[in-house]
Amino acid sequence: MLKVNAFESEQIATLDAARQRLVERRQRLLGPAYQLFYDQPLHLVRGRGAEVFDSVGRAYLDLYNNVPSVGHCHPHVVAAMASQAGELNIHTRYLHEGILDYAERLLATLPEMPAHVMFTCTGSEANDLALRIARDHSGGTGVIVTRYAYHGITMAIAELSPSMGEYVPVAGDARLVDAPLHRPQRPEQVGAQFAAQVRAALADMRRHGIRPAALLVDTLFTSDGVFADPPGFLAEAAAAVREAGGLFIADEVQPGFGRTGSHFWGFQRHGLVPDLVTLGKPMGNGHPLAGVICQPHLVERFGQCAAYFNTFGGNPVAAAVGLAVLEVIEAEGLQANAARVGALLQAGLGSLAARYPQLGEVRGAGLFIGVDVLDDEGRADTRGARRLVNALRDEGVLIGASGPASNVLKIRPPLCLSAAQGERFLEALDAVLARS
Amino acid sequence: MLKVNAFESEQIATLDAARQRLVERRQRLLGPAYQLFYDQPLHLVRGRGAEVFDSVGRAYLDLYNNVPSVGHCHPHVVAAMASQAGELNIHTRYLHEGILDYAERLLATLPEMPAHVMFTCTGSEANDLALRIARDHSGGTGVIVTRYAYHGITMAIAELSPSMGEYVPVAGDARLVDAPLHRPQRPEQVGAQFAAQVRAALADMRRHGIRPAALLVDTLFTSDGVFADPPGFLAEAAAAVREAGGLFIADEVQPGFGRTGSHFWGFQRHGLVPDLVTLGKPMGNGHPLAGVICQPHLVERFGQCAAYFNTFGGNPVAAAVGLAVLEVIEAEGLQANAARVGALLQAGLGSLAARYPQLGEVRGAGLFIGVDVLDDEGRADTRGARRLVNALRDEGVLIGASGPASNVLKIRPPLCLSAAQGERFLEALDAVLARS
Repeated sequence: MLKVNAFESEQIATLDAARQRLVERRQRLLGPAYQLFYDQPLHLVRGRGAEVFDSVGRAYLDLYNNVPSVGHCHPHVVAAMASQAGELNIHTRYLHEGILDYAERLLATLPEMPAHVMFTCTGSEANDLALRIARDHSGGTGVIVTRYAYHGITMAIAELSPSMGEYVPVAGDARLVDAPLHRPQRPEQVGAQFAAQVRAALADMRRHGIRPAALLVDTLFTSDGVFADPPGFLAEAAAAVREAGGLFIADEVQPGFGRTGSHFWGFQRHGLVPDLVTLGKPMGNGHPLAGVICQPHLVERFGQCAAYFNTFGGNPVAAAVGLAVLEVIEAEGLQANAARVGALLQAGLGSLAARYPQLGEVRGAGLFIGVDVLDDEGRADTRGARRLVNALRDEGVLIGASGPASNVLKIRPPLCLSAAQGERFLEALDAVLARS
Repeated sequence: MLKVNAFESEQIATLDAARQRLVERRQRLLGPAYQLFYDQPLHLVRGRGAEVFDSVGRAYLDLYNNVPSVGHCHPHVVAAMASQAGELNIHTRYLHEGILDYAERLLATLPEMPAHVMFTCTGSEANDLALRIARDHSGGTGVIVTRYAYHGITMAIAELSPSMGEYVPVAGDARLVDAPLHRPQRPEQVGAQFAAQVRAALADMRRHGIRPAALLVDTLFTSDGVFADPPGFLAEAAAAVREAGGLFIADEVQPGFGRTGSHFWGFQRHGLVPDLVTLGKPMGNGHPLAGVICQPHLVERFGQCAAYFNTFGGNPVAAAVGLAVLEVIEAEGLQANAARVGALLQAGLGSLAARYPQLGEVRGAGLFIGVDVLDDEGRADTRGARRLVNALRDEGVLIGASGPASNVLKIRPPLCLSAAQGERFLEALDAVLARS
């Protein structure tokens, strides 16, 4: 997570004068915690559909940003926001129909689960709230996460996000398990091996007197390197944690809202029903909107005794934006587009991997794809991935990198990416690989 | 904090059919954690200036909501939001001038302090981040907060918000001190007595082997019951915690952005310079925008080693909104208006208190005022305050209640409240008191 594809301040002399000034202003005003992407950071000024434009008018094809998921600055979403912001924007302790209409529409996307939804502003807040509910309901504190997980940046959730790096300690009552590695030869083993690790973690908690609260996973294992197959592999691990008295929390902040193509939610690919589902990033297409969906019995006591109030969460503007996003996904068939263009990208990347030894396994679902970058001896190639990401940026195509070694190309464009734009990306990658 | 002025679901039969349906939908969709204000909840549909309007067109004078601080749906703020949302809305790992222009303008309001600003989406996230920085820099974990403090709802901050109620335990390494009670006869004692409590809390931490990280206070002690005087009383306590190796965190989520009238920030009334300042509520006039301002040396290591990335925090739309809010405060002279109308309200409330024994001490600064409600024997009158709040709502005026006994009328209107609107409130309160 840390310093993946990040501009290093020693490189400042390589920038043109205008960007040098911007970088210096950032350092002075925002301090050292703010990072920039790319050896040559982008100065963006405009976005439209799956494209962004820099300050000199150059277009970049965006295959990185999963937040503006229905397309940058989608007019229907912007209009809904502006219209409601001009009418009323206030907290949720008055009655308002907007939040109810949105909640109803949102919950209808999870027909398998009787549920309440509670709104927050960020995915971090959503995971933090889910953790509070899981601890309250289970009476336990222990949480199992994957070895390179990312779930957010509140104090409690940063301690459950080992991808933050060595400097941020993992919580004492947390246990780490390996991501469910893809085993194309023996797909039936993926779920059993992941569940075996979860059972071992539960046994270790028991030995330390820690009661389990939850198994918390990103259902596409984004920061671990993108692990999607075979569908269904999560069910056994979820059952194991429940058997031990803990809850299964599906972190859908990245996989959710149609991105996987075949389903609206990542967990649905696994044929299971989570206890809690956390939502975020694409939910407001850039507007700070996130939330927790949970089975009603889990919050009966917590809701009555602890309550929960988020000043901006679920306010009329957030609800209007969220509803507009759902409307666009449906009206423009974006989930089906994710399936179609995602399949095209996976096939194209597979062909490139057959021709270029630098590319290894291609994994993913819909418009969320990871591709291993390997060195001559077939090992994870961190620098090779960085070179590819920066070379593509110079070609006008934005992607990122992921995984413990940052050697997995991370490809997750807005869901409106067209087949032609997908082809353009494949051509650019082909050109870059041919030169490298 | 819990159940202050809250609708109880047993009262549902007293509502008209339309509101019954809305309350039932809320319970079904959002669950038990969502509370409503007033015995007869309001169904609001529109806001403008310091007024809100319900579904049948009735106007309410808003003396409660400090979030839409420059006025409900201020056209300059809405236009800035809509315009930027139509251009580009993306995270902070690309260069963008908006966040820098806003940061520069914002930091210029704290001339006494060399500082960086880091953006979050909520005040809870801001306090959570400030706590992470304070713990990182001090090497300690102990935090001192007031006995009825509210600082937010992340797991780490809920444990430092005793006003959440008995169900949410206070952190084991936190220590509670009484709010600095107003002593009009001996104002010089307020600061010394508060500092003595802080020193005792530090000594108790030492005895338990807990290293102090911070003293964290809302500089107007909002949830404790609003304690503003005498200016300067916080300085000695801040010095005491620093002497022990901890930091002083000024929680400006409620006092900040000109509300106190005499100053832009609450801490400035106390003639001190905080180590960290946390911002929120009025910062985006309802848009989810918050942040931490900190002395640069405090984040040098944290920023480089732990980094901090908030997906929506400080994005171009948030920055445009934040800048527009600062522009309105300046262009419309809202800080001066807060001083002028606040003084008028304090004087008028003082006159009412002289005539009605139900009203006790009037405290506050600018447009943030607390008034004790007392029973016949001069004790805190929780039910009396609730009756007044609900009677005023029926008169078309919105206020709230605060303090450990919920007997302190909480008056904190949008900063654009006019003198005439202030008079209308005083007349309504007079009428309600005369009847009660």
